[in-house]
Amino acid sequence: MKVNGKNHRTVWMEGSSVFLIEQNLLPFKFEIFESKSYKQTCEAIKNMLVRGAGAIGSAAGFAMTQAFLEAPEKGFWESVEKAKKEIEATRPTAQNLFYATERVFLKAKISNDPVESAIHTAQSIADKDAEDSRKIGEHGNNLIESGFRILTHCNAGWLAFTDFGTALSPIYMAHKSKKNIFVYVDETRPRSQGARLTAWELKNEGIPHAVIPDNAAAHLMQQGKIDMVIVGADRIAANGDVANKIGTLEKAICAKEFGIPFYVAAPTSTFDPVCKTGKEIPIEERNPEEVLYQTGLTEDGKVERVLVCSPGSDAFNPAFDVTPAKFITGIITEKGIISS
Amino acid sequence: MKVNGKNHRTVWMEGSSVFLIEQNLLPFKFEIFESKSYKQTCEAIKNMLVRGAGAIGSAAGFAMTQAFLEAPEKGFWESVEKAKKEIEATRPTAQNLFYATERVFLKAKISNDPVESAIHTAQSIADKDAEDSRKIGEHGNNLIESGFRILTHCNAGWLAFTDFGTALSPIYMAHKSKKNIFVYVDETRPRSQGARLTAWELKNEGIPHAVIPDNAAAHLMQQGKIDMVIVGADRIAANGDVANKIGTLEKAICAKEFGIPFYVAAPTSTFDPVCKTGKEIPIEERNPEEVLYQTGLTEDGKVERVLVCSPGSDAFNPAFDVTPAKFITGIITEKGIISS
Repeated sequence: MKVNGKNHRTVWMEGSSVFLIEQNLLPFKFEIFESKSYKQTCEAIKNMLVRGAGAIGSAAGFAMTQAFLEAPEKGFWESVEKAKKEIEATRPTAQNLFYATERVFLKAKISNDPVESAIHTAQSIADKDAEDSRKIGEHGNNLIESGFRILTHCNAGWLAFTDFGTALSPIYMAHKSKKNIFVYVDETRPRSQGARLTAWELKNEGIPHAVIPDNAAAHLMQQGKIDMVIVGADRIAANGDVANKIGTLEKAICAKEFGIPFYVAAPTSTFDPVCKTGKEIPIEERNPEEVLYQTGLTEDGKVERVLVCSPGSDAFNPAFDVTPAKFITGIITEKGIISS
Repeated sequence: MKVNGKNHRTVWMEGSSVFLIEQNLLPFKFEIFESKSYKQTCEAIKNMLVRGAGAIGSAAGFAMTQAFLEAPEKGFWESVEKAKKEIEATRPTAQNLFYATERVFLKAKISNDPVESAIHTAQSIADKDAEDSRKIGEHGNNLIESGFRILTHCNAGWLAFTDFGTALSPIYMAHKSKKNIFVYVDETRPRSQGARLTAWELKNEGIPHAVIPDNAAAHLMQQGKIDMVIVGADRIAANGDVANKIGTLEKAICAKEFGIPFYVAAPTSTFDPVCKTGKEIPIEERNPEEVLYQTGLTEDGKVERVLVCSPGSDAFNPAFDVTPAKFITGIITEKGIISS
């Protein structure tokens, strides 16, 4: 997708270098980080320079390729296997990461030219991630009519994948096909990925939008100002319950109350058939400081952290919630739309 | 209520001075402002040094007393009437302000000792505001059982009234009567009155609490961690619809979904019998900068404003929403509890 008018992916490879958009600096600074070794790419994944399921998968695949390129002739496979373990230790709960390292490794193992195989496989993983996102966009676009005002929560845009994204992909496709749309972006406290990343993506694509406080969504729905809601997903249980960023559940309950279609957009790899219902999904509780403090840009251009809460008060910070399937109109996947 | 262990009201009068808690400095600094003339008190009301329906009413009454004390013998009533107009111009939509100025003026007009009458009437207005809040607390306390975890939104505490508050008054009474309670405080973006003022009040009273992102309430309800919700009200229509801080509607819809009692606490003066339903209540749209920026305390102790959104993105900032009566379990007033 576009940044300052030029097309970018979140992560890509050229020669032996992996290039990544430095997401920790967004939205205040746009910089590309060049990682020259698999160890540097590991650090980038660990430090969340790259984040989001699809983008982490692609980065991990490329890190494997770097490991193959760097491995000495003597002890080649030992070196690769050691690197694989290091890559897998960067974000131990990222499903896509393990899929990528494993796939690059196994394909190379049975190839006559392991290095060439690794280059090819890692690229395929990134391309498939982008292509799945593109297909989600095409299917989702069929649900969008010109004139629609769409609400989204958090960031399920191209920055979280290799390209296009999930919740935002249908929005990009609708805009591309000249539909007149407007996007309301939930700020998404405490980490404000809506205000920071989704708004940044939409601005770069020239899509009309406004950030709203998380408190304002139901009011807009009540006023007839929202035609549909699209969000992403972190995990989908076998019964269709969806774990996603905290606040998704509130929006889904309110959308149902006001008869507004509520869609989840996610690749089929997000489904976890082993997990029967949403009740089995553990909810991560993150550091209360994410609630108590906010990071932003001062008037003299410095990024500073400020306390935004009464000093000495405690906070509670659950990172995700589970939306029961009954609140979800449909799930937009790369294979089509699954209706509840 | 208590600040650093000492009892305070939000606003009070001693001699010819009006004393006000400087609310613009909270929660980072606690300071009392001494206003020595009605003109200074007007400035304090205008600059929101004092805010909240009840507190503004008391401050306006005391400002009238100052006007009476300052009026010269010659042209006494002209001077008072001029001051009255100035006081009324400070916050032209504050109902309680007009009630206070009018009452002090008319009582004095028919008195043999207008100055003494003004002193007495203004003090009665402040005392009645505090007493109504105290009664709301007593009635509301009957709804609270020991062990309750209570959710509140925004700040309807003593800082918004002369003392005790509305939504927080039952919480203070429950704590005083040794009930074991825990309060979840919605941050209440964009102005964060929950995180800043409600949390500050609760901390000073020693009541266990945690600030939560506005996104987290439904998740807590789903997990069975909220036993009741109490919020304040800005205006109540004849049919029981309630206008209150943006986000109240979302909490009310979610509370109903999870079968959790949702109470509104407000003095009967908040009822507007002329307003038939909530649809007639106009919703103020405030400056988008309240969403785009946050003010907080830097690590070196300065209060600074930072941009917390993608630069160049727009925001939409409705300040209130209307909760239909069907979502409200009851309204706690100084006269008792009205059940829907």
